[in-house]
Amino acid sequence: MDARPATASGPADPPADAEPRPRRTGYRRLPVQQRREQLIAVALELFATRAPEEVGLDDVAEAAGASRPLVYRYFAGGKQQLYEAALRTAADELTSRFAVPLTGTPSEQLSAVLDGYFAFVAEHDAGYSALLRGGSVVETARTSAIVDDVRRAALRRTLRHLGVREAGPRLTLLVRSWIAVVEGASLSWLDEGRALPVAELRDWLVDQFTAMAAATALHDPQTAQVLAALLALEGPDAPRAERLRAVLAAGR
Amino acid sequence: MDARPATASGPADPPADAEPRPRRTGYRRLPVQQRREQLIAVALELFATRAPEEVGLDDVAEAAGASRPLVYRYFAGGKQQLYEAALRTAADELTSRFAVPLTGTPSEQLSAVLDGYFAFVAEHDAGYSALLRGGSVVETARTSAIVDDVRRAALRRTLRHLGVREAGPRLTLLVRSWIAVVEGASLSWLDEGRALPVAELRDWLVDQFTAMAAATALHDPQTAQVLAALLALEGPDAPRAERLRAVLAAGR
Repeated sequence: MDARPATASGPADPPADAEPRPRRTGYRRLPVQQRREQLIAVALELFATRAPEEVGLDDVAEAAGASRPLVYRYFAGGKQQLYEAALRTAADELTSRFAVPLTGTPSEQLSAVLDGYFAFVAEHDAGYSALLRGGSVVETARTSAIVDDVRRAALRRTLRHLGVREAGPRLTLLVRSWIAVVEGASLSWLDEGRALPVAELRDWLVDQFTAMAAATALHDPQTAQVLAALLALEGPDAPRAERLRAVLAAGR
Repeated sequence: MDARPATASGPADPPADAEPRPRRTGYRRLPVQQRREQLIAVALELFATRAPEEVGLDDVAEAAGASRPLVYRYFAGGKQQLYEAALRTAADELTSRFAVPLTGTPSEQLSAVLDGYFAFVAEHDAGYSALLRGGSVVETARTSAIVDDVRRAALRRTLRHLGVREAGPRLTLLVRSWIAVVEGASLSWLDEGRALPVAELRDWLVDQFTAMAAATALHDPQTAQVLAALLALEGPDAPRAERLRAVLAAGR
């Protein structure tokens, strides 16, 4: 039995396990975990269109149709706690999108993952930009660590999908670099009002992977082996690689 | 005539135009601008081996052989002001290293610029990492803007060197992406205790540029034109591009 009284309390109170009875009518009463998820979802929607420093707990309360004391109780650490909780939720969601489909050529599989990634970027928009651009007042060593976790998950997932157990420094550098290119491209895409079609950007990134792997293969037998295996899986002609070869013959 | 008395004063005083007479013997008296440059140089040396948050004005005073009040007068805004001044100095120095040598093939010119870049990275080490990694307590919208200025200078300089007056979005994305790869590679290099030889990393980055340009040329006539012109300048065989072509034929 919970001995704590379920009365409404101010923002300075410690977070309670049970939600206080709303003082005003019109607020829906939700179970604790569900309410927390709802508040985070609302916060993520606000972060998508406003800078993190412009979103306060009051805005979340208003948008969620919740009382201010209730929101302050869930996030007694203030907007920084709210921001970190929202970031953690978004990071988990993004990581779950790295799952590679089981069928298709390597290019098709990579395309599918990139489509999921750009859908995430489009949905989170301003929040995604503010986070990766740095310099925000809500950025801390903790938020940077969450972002780094996502990058590491992307690296692990990619290497696993390439069938690599122990990646040497050059293959690791290749995959890390390509992930940085994906990030940068998605930021540019948002900056320019999504002017480039997503499908083109996705195909460009798939071609970048092939090209960057080829450049790394010149310096590293492990990458050469991985690239050869990928190209073999692309089908008899590996048509995109063939086009890359042709363009490298230009100017001769 | 300067009406202000040239007496030693505490940290709360506004910065003076003239340096106060040192209270203890053993301090050298320097002209204002020279002293400021010396303090920033000392700070940059400290930032190279310690996290920005671990370097205070007292450390700078000690390392510079200057009195604490003197250092506090030059940087009345505290360590944040010192950090930003040091960052601005480092950013200017880095930008000056983007100058491309007038002779050599495009690969040789790019190699020379990259050698200068890695020399800068090696010299600033921890400070460079902390800055680009984000999440430091001394990171602000202002410090992010300084870093972005450097990136923009690198972009402009590269496009100018490629003979491009008006870069379209795809060529711009290519150059930006390659700059991001250079940054990421330099961070990885520091992370791994400089295990990879700089010359190899530099050659890898030159090959990345060619490969990434080839992948972009598939999507963009402007980049195709730029790449063809570069390859023509590489000499009759463009040997590095030829090796890229060969590796893309693997697995067939």
